[in-house]
Amino acid sequence: MGYDKVDELAINTIRTLAVDATFQANSGHPGAPMGMAPVAHVLFNRFMTFNPKNPEWLNRDRFVLSNGHGCMLHYALLHLFGYAVSLDDLKNFRQVDSITPGHPEAHDTPGIEVTTGPLGQGIANAVGLAIAQRQGGAVFNKPGFELLNNHTYAFFGDGCAMEGIASEAASMAGHLQLGNLIAIYDDNHISIDGDTACAFTEDVLKRFEAYGWHTQWVEHGDTDLEAIEKAIAAARAVTDKPSVIKLTTTIGFGSKLQGTGGVHGNPLKADDVQQVKEKFGFDPNKTFVVPQEVYDLYNKHASDGAAAEQEWNQLFEKYGKEHPKEHAELVRRMKRDLPEGWQKALPTYKPSDSAQASRKLSEAVLEAIHDVVPELLSGSADLTGSNNTRWKKAVDFQPPSTKLGDWSGRYMRYGVREHAMAAVMNGISAYGIHIPAGGTFLNFVSYAAGAVRLSALSHQRVIYVATHDSIGLGEDGPTHQPIETLAHFRALPNFMVWRPADGNETSAAYYMALTSRTTPSLLALTRQNLPQLENSSIEGAIRGGYVALEDKEAAVTLVSTGSEVSLCLESVKTLADQGLKARVVSLPCWEVFDAQDKEYKLKVLPDGIPIMSVEVLSTLGWEKYSHEQFGLNRFGASGPYKEVYKKFEFTPEGIAKRAVATVNFYKDVKPLRSPVNRAFQQLI
Amino acid sequence: MGYDKVDELAINTIRTLAVDATFQANSGHPGAPMGMAPVAHVLFNRFMTFNPKNPEWLNRDRFVLSNGHGCMLHYALLHLFGYAVSLDDLKNFRQVDSITPGHPEAHDTPGIEVTTGPLGQGIANAVGLAIAQRQGGAVFNKPGFELLNNHTYAFFGDGCAMEGIASEAASMAGHLQLGNLIAIYDDNHISIDGDTACAFTEDVLKRFEAYGWHTQWVEHGDTDLEAIEKAIAAARAVTDKPSVIKLTTTIGFGSKLQGTGGVHGNPLKADDVQQVKEKFGFDPNKTFVVPQEVYDLYNKHASDGAAAEQEWNQLFEKYGKEHPKEHAELVRRMKRDLPEGWQKALPTYKPSDSAQASRKLSEAVLEAIHDVVPELLSGSADLTGSNNTRWKKAVDFQPPSTKLGDWSGRYMRYGVREHAMAAVMNGISAYGIHIPAGGTFLNFVSYAAGAVRLSALSHQRVIYVATHDSIGLGEDGPTHQPIETLAHFRALPNFMVWRPADGNETSAAYYMALTSRTTPSLLALTRQNLPQLENSSIEGAIRGGYVALEDKEAAVTLVSTGSEVSLCLESVKTLADQGLKARVVSLPCWEVFDAQDKEYKLKVLPDGIPIMSVEVLSTLGWEKYSHEQFGLNRFGASGPYKEVYKKFEFTPEGIAKRAVATVNFYKDVKPLRSPVNRAFQQLI
Ligand SMILES: [Ca+2]
Ligand SMILES: [Ca+2]
Repeated sequence: MGYDKVDELAINTIRTLAVDATFQANSGHPGAPMGMAPVAHVLFNRFMTFNPKNPEWLNRDRFVLSNGHGCMLHYALLHLFGYAVSLDDLKNFRQVDSITPGHPEAHDTPGIEVTTGPLGQGIANAVGLAIAQRQGGAVFNKPGFELLNNHTYAFFGDGCAMEGIASEAASMAGHLQLGNLIAIYDDNHISIDGDTACAFTEDVLKRFEAYGWHTQWVEHGDTDLEAIEKAIAAARAVTDKPSVIKLTTTIGFGSKLQGTGGVHGNPLKADDVQQVKEKFGFDPNKTFVVPQEVYDLYNKHASDGAAAEQEWNQLFEKYGKEHPKEHAELVRRMKRDLPEGWQKALPTYKPSDSAQASRKLSEAVLEAIHDVVPELLSGSADLTGSNNTRWKKAVDFQPPSTKLGDWSGRYMRYGVREHAMAAVMNGISAYGIHIPAGGTFLNFVSYAAGAVRLSALSHQRVIYVATHDSIGLGEDGPTHQPIETLAHFRALPNFMVWRPADGNETSAAYYMALTSRTTPSLLALTRQNLPQLENSSIEGAIRGGYVALEDKEAAVTLVSTGSEVSLCLESVKTLADQGLKARVVSLPCWEVFDAQDKEYKLKVLPDGIPIMSVEVLSTLGWEKYSHEQFGLNRFGASGPYKEVYKKFEFTPEGIAKRAVATVNFYKDVKPLRSPVNRAFQQLI
Repeated sequence: MGYDKVDELAINTIRTLAVDATFQANSGHPGAPMGMAPVAHVLFNRFMTFNPKNPEWLNRDRFVLSNGHGCMLHYALLHLFGYAVSLDDLKNFRQVDSITPGHPEAHDTPGIEVTTGPLGQGIANAVGLAIAQRQGGAVFNKPGFELLNNHTYAFFGDGCAMEGIASEAASMAGHLQLGNLIAIYDDNHISIDGDTACAFTEDVLKRFEAYGWHTQWVEHGDTDLEAIEKAIAAARAVTDKPSVIKLTTTIGFGSKLQGTGGVHGNPLKADDVQQVKEKFGFDPNKTFVVPQEVYDLYNKHASDGAAAEQEWNQLFEKYGKEHPKEHAELVRRMKRDLPEGWQKALPTYKPSDSAQASRKLSEAVLEAIHDVVPELLSGSADLTGSNNTRWKKAVDFQPPSTKLGDWSGRYMRYGVREHAMAAVMNGISAYGIHIPAGGTFLNFVSYAAGAVRLSALSHQRVIYVATHDSIGLGEDGPTHQPIETLAHFRALPNFMVWRPADGNETSAAYYMALTSRTTPSLLALTRQNLPQLENSSIEGAIRGGYVALEDKEAAVTLVSTGSEVSLCLESVKTLADQGLKARVVSLPCWEVFDAQDKEYKLKVLPDGIPIMSVEVLSTLGWEKYSHEQFGLNRFGASGPYKEVYKKFEFTPEGIAKRAVATVNFYKDVKPLRSPVNRAFQQLI
């Protein structure tokens, strides 16, 4: 179709909007939007199908700006196409409570698919979005009903390309032959430290080739719209490999400082703003100008998108007649509802049931619910047999050519790529019709911290199955034994850390993880066996904490989680021998317990007697629920786990000794308030 | 020289030792040692120079087992060569308090250079070791005195190859043209989930080529000792590129389950142990057998190593005569002593000095001390201008051919590779004559969590310069504003988290970071300006906490860090207007404060009046020092930082309001103990 003046005008409109917004905010990154405006214009107008009036349409093409600092590019596009992003919103760029924050946040802005900015995350999210399309398509598409066939497009820069998470994700995408994924690498030779020559001289395309990607180079990315279009078309034609297009551009194109680090992370100076506008034929004294013919062009494409959705809706209606079961299922999943009564499948346990490791109890949950919760995709970062994440009849999600699984498979082989696993799960969740769960050792969830944080910030229902949750893993030793890990993730907002003590609590953890639509969860699970507790129940545990052993005459409350709850119960007998009565509280999830009403919390952790926490991890934070803390504020040890527990005095005697000291220490304090009592509420 | 029966016997001795140790421990990984015994035998005997009697000899060749789960391979070698690792130590493999833990720990075992096991770390450490050699050599070598010319060798497996950190480190090594680094990739097609075909099908050598490495493939790694030797020799001949040798091996070579996942992470079964020994000509009924001729062969090489060190010592003595200054300097650095009186260079401030961001105050420290502390290597993960990590006259550490610096440069361009930066710094520190400091945003230290943990566990004196430490970074928004980050790293054992409030505290943080030989530090620094405090001093701050404003009639203590200390001081005036007196404590480093005597701690945080903490981050852990906590247990917001502070009520009024509530709430509690009072001591 060729390109004319209006196309050029549109590209320069995007550029000047980015210049104006960053100048007005006195903050932000004009360089990437100015450099990538041409490819964005071509991609969004000539290839992408979407309806700005319904940003949630399931089969829309997905776009991810992995170099999220360039978000004014995306905000400008959203505005021009008629998403609910106004010119005023652009003028409020980077202001408190605006919908145009400094980096794109999916839950803030219509049309933003995933939350990016932390480098490398977006490209990994894009891999997840592409996986979700492939898997969903394999499940729901039927002859004559190509319901799910969207593409995922991602832009990324040098910064993303340098991040390990991007390498992991790209290797995974190559293995998975994700032909529905097209990435544009903004090769502008600039990162924050200046010329990439100072730190980044690898051959990026060759690296992606090594991963199994289809690669192309467009040399004149600033101007050669035809070449950009041709490359994207060629990428779409390759369906058995992900594609990357290296696009050589000039960062800050049009600025006096174009091609330098000066335009990366700072607004243009006033005189530069003026000369840019003059250069592009805009009135240098006007700001936030959008020529009507640009609106017209973009509105036209938006209308085409609306029509495409309309057509899809009709197809979907017809699908409902021919495939009513699948139709109902997809409707349900789009609403993020779980199947009616699914929770009845959750295993429950009696005290007489055999002791089991909570990783095995987690496996029992997956075995029990995988049929009734078909949106659940499990997986592991190469620790399947240790994480117990795979139900017996699971099929791997694999390209059929590998003969190791197929596209409808629900078990992900993430490889030893924890960080990418987490970000890919964020992408899978963001697609809208899956709930991803992924396993690794608790200690190595730390490798994924950057992406776990974004699960929480961007409200993704993602489940981290984190086994080998303490020194209880034994022989692997301090390099594998978490100490600080639970404190870390307990401090993360909108994130549930579960450390179940037995089977019922494990079922409760899954219940909450699956039913919390906008909160991710981590399940810290043991390698070693745990007995089934007397008073545990799903109903008690889903309140985050409950009384595991009551005694109205108790002199002390022991509050604990996971493997140490049964140890506390044993120590109650030791204490009884010494004439001291104790009660025991299990507190498997702080985040959930905190949300209970005060009356309940004070029933669990009452005033009047001292409370001592017991957990074989850092004590940090336990002061919130206890007067004294018994934990492990040092690194662990390599050895059989019972020996290691003994070394650190995590025995009934070791607990009892400290409980006695606690009781004596608080004898004279009146009133002795439960730490649950607070002078004021926290902002949340 | 060829290989004979004794070589074969030695290789099989290593294999059977690994089989016996894992069988005896009923735990561990026999597969990698059995597969890699041939290359280890060739490398250690034919190429590596080391003296088992002095594992600290500076110019020894370094060996890193990045696939650390295979540590029985290394322990066996250490024993055979005569390091202080006895047969009994091998028999105590994976037992509590042995020197042969489940993964190699540098501070536990003579001859272990770096702590590995968490995958990908070792190969990145190796890059750091190679950098340290290059930089040290450039500084200390003189014509006729090749003092530092050792090689660094690393083994890594598929797991390491999949980890993003390894990709980052390999890209960096390629850019830096580290010809002194030789890595052996154990291409055995097996990871924990089974055949690598299920998740890892990229072309690894092509990827390394893309990074700029010299690559080779040895096809018959189980048997072809000549080819292994030839490849290593060829790798040594390439001096302007790091080298990788892909070595195709059979995991668990000799076992009935060889070549399968069954030998990866589990000991061999009893009958398999027997058949392996028979196959290799060993008595199936004997364990931990080392034929004398194997000891003899290895002792011979050990003697050669001892002689090499002797020769080096003579050279070094001669060097002392011709280059006395450099000699004294290197002697000092090997002892990890700092130069006499260096601390006099630390800047100090008066209250009348101008307000400055603590990232600028950190820059002032680097500017002031870089000449007197020449072992300090600074750097940044592509945020040099934001982290303020570079002194004005700094020279980049770069291959001279880039014309961007030279090998003696002390400024590292890590690129956007936070995780590798941290692990490379661990390697640089482990070499023994440098103190590395590296910058990124505090929020992105989380990307490096896996390696930061190992800084602490392995006692490396590494400094994390973590700027933009709160919502005070403003417009970049929630994706960049840390909330949980300080709680995370405060919970990490043997790790100092500093959050200085002004110039003197910043100098104190550097003082402690540099003088703590076995403890890494993180400096959380502001983007925004901070006033110089009235009562601050280096002497006060190096105790971890001190009284910033005393008032004997105070009704409340406000305890705070960093940017909120001056805010607390302001709020004291607001409180005074309301008739309430308050005192203020600055607590820049918990880890250091915890180590003070109780009397001092109670002077700072006394009994009798309530204590409220104030910090714009997660409150988690602050209960340890305060009765009530004012913090931010939610994500931040994008906007000018003063607006963001206001939104969350971090204003003198917001603090005062909560201080009043705190005073009222605790009026009736007698005695009101300081949280510093504890019923029992923590295990540390
Ligand atoms: Ca760039
Ligand atoms: Ca392998």
